[in-house]
Amino acid sequence: MNQFVVQNVTIIDGKRIIPDGFVQVKDKWIVAVGSEWMDNHEECECIDGQGKILMPGLVNTHGHTPMTLLRGISDDLPLERWLKEKIWPAEAALDEETAAAGTALALVEMLRAGTTCFADMYHLNREGTALLTEESGMKASLSRGMIAFGSKEAQREKLNEAVTYAKACDASSSGRLRGAIFPHSPYTCSLHFLQEAKAAADVSSLPFQIHIAETRKEVREYEKEQGKRPIAHLMEKGILSNGSLAVHSVHVNKAEISALSHAGVHVSHNPQSNLKLGSGIAPLPQMLNENIPVSLGTDSAASNNTLDLFVEMRQAAMIHKGNEERAEVTNAQEIVNMATYTGAQTLGFPRAGLIKEGYEADFILIDTRQPHLTPQLNGYGALVYAASGRDVTDVFVAGCALMRDRRLLTLDEEKIRKEAALAHEKWKAAQ
Amino acid sequence: MNQFVVQNVTIIDGKRIIPDGFVQVKDKWIVAVGSEWMDNHEECECIDGQGKILMPGLVNTHGHTPMTLLRGISDDLPLERWLKEKIWPAEAALDEETAAAGTALALVEMLRAGTTCFADMYHLNREGTALLTEESGMKASLSRGMIAFGSKEAQREKLNEAVTYAKACDASSSGRLRGAIFPHSPYTCSLHFLQEAKAAADVSSLPFQIHIAETRKEVREYEKEQGKRPIAHLMEKGILSNGSLAVHSVHVNKAEISALSHAGVHVSHNPQSNLKLGSGIAPLPQMLNENIPVSLGTDSAASNNTLDLFVEMRQAAMIHKGNEERAEVTNAQEIVNMATYTGAQTLGFPRAGLIKEGYEADFILIDTRQPHLTPQLNGYGALVYAASGRDVTDVFVAGCALMRDRRLLTLDEEKIRKEAALAHEKWKAAQ
Repeated sequence: MNQFVVQNVTIIDGKRIIPDGFVQVKDKWIVAVGSEWMDNHEECECIDGQGKILMPGLVNTHGHTPMTLLRGISDDLPLERWLKEKIWPAEAALDEETAAAGTALALVEMLRAGTTCFADMYHLNREGTALLTEESGMKASLSRGMIAFGSKEAQREKLNEAVTYAKACDASSSGRLRGAIFPHSPYTCSLHFLQEAKAAADVSSLPFQIHIAETRKEVREYEKEQGKRPIAHLMEKGILSNGSLAVHSVHVNKAEISALSHAGVHVSHNPQSNLKLGSGIAPLPQMLNENIPVSLGTDSAASNNTLDLFVEMRQAAMIHKGNEERAEVTNAQEIVNMATYTGAQTLGFPRAGLIKEGYEADFILIDTRQPHLTPQLNGYGALVYAASGRDVTDVFVAGCALMRDRRLLTLDEEKIRKEAALAHEKWKAAQ
Repeated sequence: MNQFVVQNVTIIDGKRIIPDGFVQVKDKWIVAVGSEWMDNHEECECIDGQGKILMPGLVNTHGHTPMTLLRGISDDLPLERWLKEKIWPAEAALDEETAAAGTALALVEMLRAGTTCFADMYHLNREGTALLTEESGMKASLSRGMIAFGSKEAQREKLNEAVTYAKACDASSSGRLRGAIFPHSPYTCSLHFLQEAKAAADVSSLPFQIHIAETRKEVREYEKEQGKRPIAHLMEKGILSNGSLAVHSVHVNKAEISALSHAGVHVSHNPQSNLKLGSGIAPLPQMLNENIPVSLGTDSAASNNTLDLFVEMRQAAMIHKGNEERAEVTNAQEIVNMATYTGAQTLGFPRAGLIKEGYEADFILIDTRQPHLTPQLNGYGALVYAASGRDVTDVFVAGCALMRDRRLLTLDEEKIRKEAALAHEKWKAAQ
């Protein structure tokens, strides 16, 4: 039976800090956490955590892994031009093989940076993504992306595929996959299609996710066409409801924040992507004040350009302070909680995201014996304002080691990097 | 004679990219740059740059190195409370020895992250800072910080010390140090003192630097007291003039931007510090449009919390796009130019900041063979939106290697980290 103890380690999760603690793991569970490890005479591997922080694995609640192959394809362009002039033509040149290479690259990058659980929405290479995620040992919420252009039949087929895929993920034997239904957005799907997608999700008890209120233009044009703002309208129609995930939610007003809160809608805040595409600055402090479960997402590497949630944590903490000219509107502990506990709840892993007895053993170790983490006065501050994904040395998911001493154990990093370079050449030739 | 060539390397500076180039160094100079290295049969060390980017060393135009010991002392508090409740009491407990430990830690952190030249303003351990900078092989603009509280005599003594220190730096035999005159701010120094400081700077041909227009409150209170906004007033009085460095310049209006531009005043943009303290978002795009030489600074680790200029570059590029909801208001090439060429010009190193024949050989190598830098479609984008200080492998200043393969050659990192931890204990005990 898999069992081990990490000791002499600073334990930090979204709820508390234990300065010199231990975590005991049996099978896939955390069975004990405390400040003094008493050897219990069982045979048990001991990992010395001296000089390290142990925290829950980070949870990335929004992304598109195949697009990692398009990293840097277009910088310094606004969302609409980025999408229409660069991304859609570029994506048209992706195929199953190149998409697979992008996904593998994303998994390597995320794992290295301490992400243990991620959301992925894409239309290509679905079974491949599920399979690789299983092999990697990571957790994920997977969905078939749907843009509802094309004939009624084509739309129906997409939705069928989406439901089949999501159900298969939910039924994964490892229990590490979840499925979701993810129509792209109110500006690429008709209201009718969104209603059908939501109904299909509800029938199969699948969570519903959607990009929404990302840009001012989107909201303005939707309002012109439908007479209502997109979030208000989708909530009124029951498309966004308890447990749904509203990705971006940049342009939301006070009434919408209150409605999202009352309905129990979750939000994925993607500050880097929203900044980089000039979409704007979401009212994070206001959403947190209304107790909306807001988690963090990187979006794809084509609009970020990394998948490092430490960067996202820092940005989420920083930007609202500056924008509102009030340093106290965000605090580092809350940001850590968003990136771990809230993220895990949002993606359907209720027993993950905390370092606590009875929770799954999803955690990472961070080496603080580095100049930029010295001295270490404040654990939350160190994680949010100074650390980076490059400081993560070890990753465990459900009690299994996926990275030890910066070496990946389940993914062949060199091979994946080389295949990504080849796939990138193939993609360029196909353009 | 020191000479070597770096070949098979992607060369990127603020002006151009050479995809598969070489840089030839003799003594402290770059003597040739091109795309095809022809062996000239001289005995010459060759460094293979395969898979790497070679760029100018980064220039940090604002900071307080001893405060690195106060990293994380106070997060999520606004500037005024941060300063009065936390920083000033904390600084009062620093002494020459603990300040020296903080400076050493800062130099290690900066060097590791590819910073080759920095500005430092502080009142303690001045000679020690100059000496250690010389030993480290880095370049710097050093100044004695002056807060003009206290008696006339005390103020005069501070100013005398500041001039003596700045002149000594300017006269350094290595030519790698510059001196500057740096009264803290218009809210901690009387107008009279600022005038005296400026006159002293001018008499000795020393550059003048000052924190200014950092918060809305500062501007409002100054205006209430003096009837004018601080930048406008100091320009009118000739205190800010050609070549002066206005640090922060967050709350500047259109007329002030135009005036700064006409007068040839430089600006140090410190986006992380300005965000973290809730000071606000400086109008960077507008300042660049008016051709103000704007460079980047980290400020101290107590308000950042790192000294990594890659983080600063990313923030400078990102935040204005989101704030103005226009992705095109900043571009990655311009940001790289700010962090290198403009910074070097601002700190008084006219032949630094470019990879160009006749410039000093101050450059760094970045390892791109990593998942988060794969694929590499756009060099400027990779540097600004994906790279981090942790990707820097080699640092050269004036032709000398200061870091090779991530190992520091001039500073004893382990010793400095341990001394910083001890100094931190000493500082805590003194509080």
